[in-house]
Amino acid sequence: MNRNIKLKIAYDGTNFHGWQRQDSERTVQGVIEEALEKMHGSPVNLTGSGRTDAGVHAAGQAANFYTNIDSIPSERFTPALNSLLPPDVRILQAEETDGDFHARFSAKSRLYRYQFICSPSCPLLPHESRYNLRLFHYPRLDLLNAYGRLLFGETDCSIFAGTGDTSKSKNRYVYSAYFYTDKNSLIFEIRANAFLRNMVRSVAGTFIHYEEKSTPPGKLRETILSADRSQAGPTLPPHGLFLWNIEY
Amino acid sequence: MNRNIKLKIAYDGTNFHGWQRQDSERTVQGVIEEALEKMHGSPVNLTGSGRTDAGVHAAGQAANFYTNIDSIPSERFTPALNSLLPPDVRILQAEETDGDFHARFSAKSRLYRYQFICSPSCPLLPHESRYNLRLFHYPRLDLLNAYGRLLFGETDCSIFAGTGDTSKSKNRYVYSAYFYTDKNSLIFEIRANAFLRNMVRSVAGTFIHYEEKSTPPGKLRETILSADRSQAGPTLPPHGLFLWNIEY
Repeated sequence: MNRNIKLKIAYDGTNFHGWQRQDSERTVQGVIEEALEKMHGSPVNLTGSGRTDAGVHAAGQAANFYTNIDSIPSERFTPALNSLLPPDVRILQAEETDGDFHARFSAKSRLYRYQFICSPSCPLLPHESRYNLRLFHYPRLDLLNAYGRLLFGETDCSIFAGTGDTSKSKNRYVYSAYFYTDKNSLIFEIRANAFLRNMVRSVAGTFIHYEEKSTPPGKLRETILSADRSQAGPTLPPHGLFLWNIEY
Repeated sequence: MNRNIKLKIAYDGTNFHGWQRQDSERTVQGVIEEALEKMHGSPVNLTGSGRTDAGVHAAGQAANFYTNIDSIPSERFTPALNSLLPPDVRILQAEETDGDFHARFSAKSRLYRYQFICSPSCPLLPHESRYNLRLFHYPRLDLLNAYGRLLFGETDCSIFAGTGDTSKSKNRYVYSAYFYTDKNSLIFEIRANAFLRNMVRSVAGTFIHYEEKSTPPGKLRETILSADRSQAGPTLPPHGLFLWNIEY
């Protein structure tokens, strides 16, 4: 009976073409499966909790794979894999889990975190712009957080679905969506059972777009209910976004 | 009469072989001089406030050059150069200055900043390890700051001089050297009239080394006075270090 190993994974998405394996592109799933193949001597399939877009980072992606190696304790997969992986991907934890655990289908919720720096007059420094988006103004937190509350519960998220999203239902259950500041940083955290394609980037872009126009929350509620994608704000660039944690 | 233009520069040092131009390596001075040559149609010499080691970052490096372009206001050099530079170097400011201003010799002091994350049990995440060093313990701030005060004023810094330092006098005037924390982050800031080669990396490595051994400040004072390089702690890796500002 092969053991089922669950991984917690962090990566710097800058130089990856997203999570999902592609034949001709460097992807996170691809490089981890290469490392697993080196360990096992044969191909190993890695199941992620979900895809991340090209350029999106992760502090707590989750994945699982079945191993026929029974000579080493599960926690030894962490250093073994890290020694085979490039520095922009790190295994944070490896543990044996139930045989029927599935990183995608067993996940109860996903937490994303978006990082911004409010800087009306100065461009971001190179070490800031790798992991943050620039905002050209200081937004009104109370208004952004009123927008966030519009999403709580089961919500039709059609207006936030990126091109190519193939989900049948666009309803998602949003547990929380809030903004907070720390000095010049603005952080947006959103937790939901699952996300549509590009959804977090579209939600953040829409909220900031409507905040700049001082749109009342009631008006934005109507917009969301309209399910009219053309009413959404811009889909923001990926590089300030982190897949922060997966809850099981 | 050529105008003398002063630049404020930020860079991510990860993919540079340091500041100083070298024929066969990618350096910060090298890529900015290339951009200047494209603008001017002929080579332009850029004078930096000083070198930074390979891998060291900058949030406020300073440099100057003489230009025979008199058709554009000095502040236009910022966007013009940035459009010719790779994203890991950014010009923050360009201003016309006195004809005899010299980025190195006119500098009154330099400020460096070292960033650490205290994480006894978990490795740093990829997005943390690019700009921070890991500490495996939570050091005693009061002890580190007592060490810092030993450097104040004119100090023989021989024990902190890296291999290949060619300065005749190893005396430097240290204005401040202190540590502070912010959550799990530990920051070290040191300001001096000038620094020996690898000095900040050696000072930080020595302080942390002696702090781990609970060495009393009086004992470290004797060590510094001994000018015996073999008594210094390790020279820390460059990637948590930023040249933060140059004062004129």
